[in-house]
Amino acid sequence: MTLPMAASDVKAAPQSTAPHSTAPRSTAPHPTAPQPTAPQILARCRELVRPALAAAIERLHPWPREMAAFSLGWCEVGGKPGSGAHGKGVRQALTVLCAEAAGSPGESAVAGAVAVELIHTFSLLHDDIMDGDETRRQRETVWKAYGTGPAVLAGDALFALALETLATSQNANSGAAIRKLSEALNNLVHGQAEDLLFEARPWTGPHAVQLHEYRSMADHKTGALLGCAAALGAVLAGAPSSTVTALAQAGQHLGVAFQAVDDLLGMWGDPEVTGKPVHSDLRRRKKTFPVLAALTTNSPAAPRLTALLESPSALDEVTVRHAAELIEEAGGRSATLDEASRHLDIASACLHSVPLAPTAVGEILTLLPFLITRRM
Amino acid sequence: MTLPMAASDVKAAPQSTAPHSTAPRSTAPHPTAPQPTAPQILARCRELVRPALAAAIERLHPWPREMAAFSLGWCEVGGKPGSGAHGKGVRQALTVLCAEAAGSPGESAVAGAVAVELIHTFSLLHDDIMDGDETRRQRETVWKAYGTGPAVLAGDALFALALETLATSQNANSGAAIRKLSEALNNLVHGQAEDLLFEARPWTGPHAVQLHEYRSMADHKTGALLGCAAALGAVLAGAPSSTVTALAQAGQHLGVAFQAVDDLLGMWGDPEVTGKPVHSDLRRRKKTFPVLAALTTNSPAAPRLTALLESPSALDEVTVRHAAELIEEAGGRSATLDEASRHLDIASACLHSVPLAPTAVGEILTLLPFLITRRM
Repeated sequence: MTLPMAASDVKAAPQSTAPHSTAPRSTAPHPTAPQPTAPQILARCRELVRPALAAAIERLHPWPREMAAFSLGWCEVGGKPGSGAHGKGVRQALTVLCAEAAGSPGESAVAGAVAVELIHTFSLLHDDIMDGDETRRQRETVWKAYGTGPAVLAGDALFALALETLATSQNANSGAAIRKLSEALNNLVHGQAEDLLFEARPWTGPHAVQLHEYRSMADHKTGALLGCAAALGAVLAGAPSSTVTALAQAGQHLGVAFQAVDDLLGMWGDPEVTGKPVHSDLRRRKKTFPVLAALTTNSPAAPRLTALLESPSALDEVTVRHAAELIEEAGGRSATLDEASRHLDIASACLHSVPLAPTAVGEILTLLPFLITRRM
Repeated sequence: MTLPMAASDVKAAPQSTAPHSTAPRSTAPHPTAPQPTAPQILARCRELVRPALAAAIERLHPWPREMAAFSLGWCEVGGKPGSGAHGKGVRQALTVLCAEAAGSPGESAVAGAVAVELIHTFSLLHDDIMDGDETRRQRETVWKAYGTGPAVLAGDALFALALETLATSQNANSGAAIRKLSEALNNLVHGQAEDLLFEARPWTGPHAVQLHEYRSMADHKTGALLGCAAALGAVLAGAPSSTVTALAQAGQHLGVAFQAVDDLLGMWGDPEVTGKPVHSDLRRRKKTFPVLAALTTNSPAAPRLTALLESPSALDEVTVRHAAELIEEAGGRSATLDEASRHLDIASACLHSVPLAPTAVGEILTLLPFLITRRM
């Protein structure tokens, strides 16, 4: 699915920017080679990380191991080989590319890439339990397929495995990496708590969820882990703190942009692409950015939307479609696109604020609009 | 409740053993002061750890914070002050005492004590979800009182907080402590997976749970965290690896003894003391040490017990009482007491295998039989 969003603000990497380190870059393409596409970049990073990720999963007890592999799309229930549906691996790619941007080979940050991918999988497993989500990537969620208790266990196993991966890494900076991961985990839990609490809050009045509260939630829940993914790459590459901060902030803003697009997909996304029913977030009256943004406008559509959302009866297909139209009419959709675009711009600016290896920065900048305009 | 178990193998600490370090021991009692009792030792350690534990809990988002405080017995649902029912704090005490045994003030290991207490609370929260347990310490479990999703979140929050506590500690050995914690967490998950899988396995035949499998489960599920509690005390005290290993092994064996006594309490424990219904484990046909030990004997009671356990109908009060009698008749109760006693002996031997500060060792040796013969 292609969202109608201009990504013209994202500029090509300035090839003249000198890297702060002269360490050899094993993955640098030949100067005359064409710039790889976003899917090629993601595939290269997944291939680099996959052996270590598979080896980590292999260390799990067989039961949580199967649930983890199912969650990663590597197998079906019972252990048969999977259909191949898998995540893009954005977080692991960000870790690898940020290590390269900091002048080290991507290999130096593989333990960090594995850790963030495991934490991402852990958070999907547990969030699906908390949210009661039954499908993800056109398959049953782990709790739906294996039961709630086993899914709790599998999540815990992935969390513990992520920590072990960094704790046993031979990288001299693994201690600093663990501190970054720990910070992100606490933010992740904070954001998830906020998100769950939003459900019980009203649409209007003094206790209504404000846009700034939503932004804080997204910053904690999604921004923190992408920020951590970027930071781990830089930390494990031994980058100076200014580089770590700049890359972490870029990742953080990419994460918030990501969340905004997730909200758009939850509202208008093609079920074939999202793996979720159409209008699924709206049907559940989930407080997402497009709805909250629509409600803050002076548009005549806003009070009509409020009336629909506050109605005690279940939202049928026609009502949900009407609500989606009202959100669009009130400007909720365009406000969300603006929000995503604004955070992408900041992410891009962060990448230009410190000296980085130009090839890697070019690849990150290739990824940014792709991640926002195309979602598997 | 006092279990009829001789703890005569546990000897007083040899006061002549020299500590390996000459660091001042701020908590050492005056030579002529009477040896403190086990409840006094536990209370002293709880008081030492409590401010840092409370400060850590305070850092949580308010929602998981309340659930964590509820779980610790500090408050009721809604946040009103708690009834005061709390755990003994065995794990935190072990961390403090092992730091002292290694020649450092207990204060040096407070971050470790907080981390193990948080991990213990996390594991209770999540295990209660997986096991479907509705009561603990005469109160509702967190998932029963707050819902499954929120309880998953609270457990995750405690896990992340434990990691943060060690990751941000100023102790020079916190990296090594995190490695120990990580190892224990992976073992904990492994043990919990085994325990849950035991439920679906038969009582007899080639797929029946063997005693050695049960021992391995207990070693992972309960031994690992008590071993970690002891190891963290020694590691944060800067003890040499031989001391860390000896204390970790003592904790590990104490944990396995603890699990055996837990099994006895789940079978014959006074509900007033355990906070759980009488015969609760047996009613659920849980595969515990006393039952498995009874089934391995040649006693004529064993096949009669098997017939009861394999019967498809629910176990009523009379049947459960009869099953408990058969387990006792077949020697399951005495075998479990022997198991606990054997592991206590090994724990005691570990404490005598390296030079340690005698006062602290004396306190640990005071705790051992208390923890096994008296359970709040």
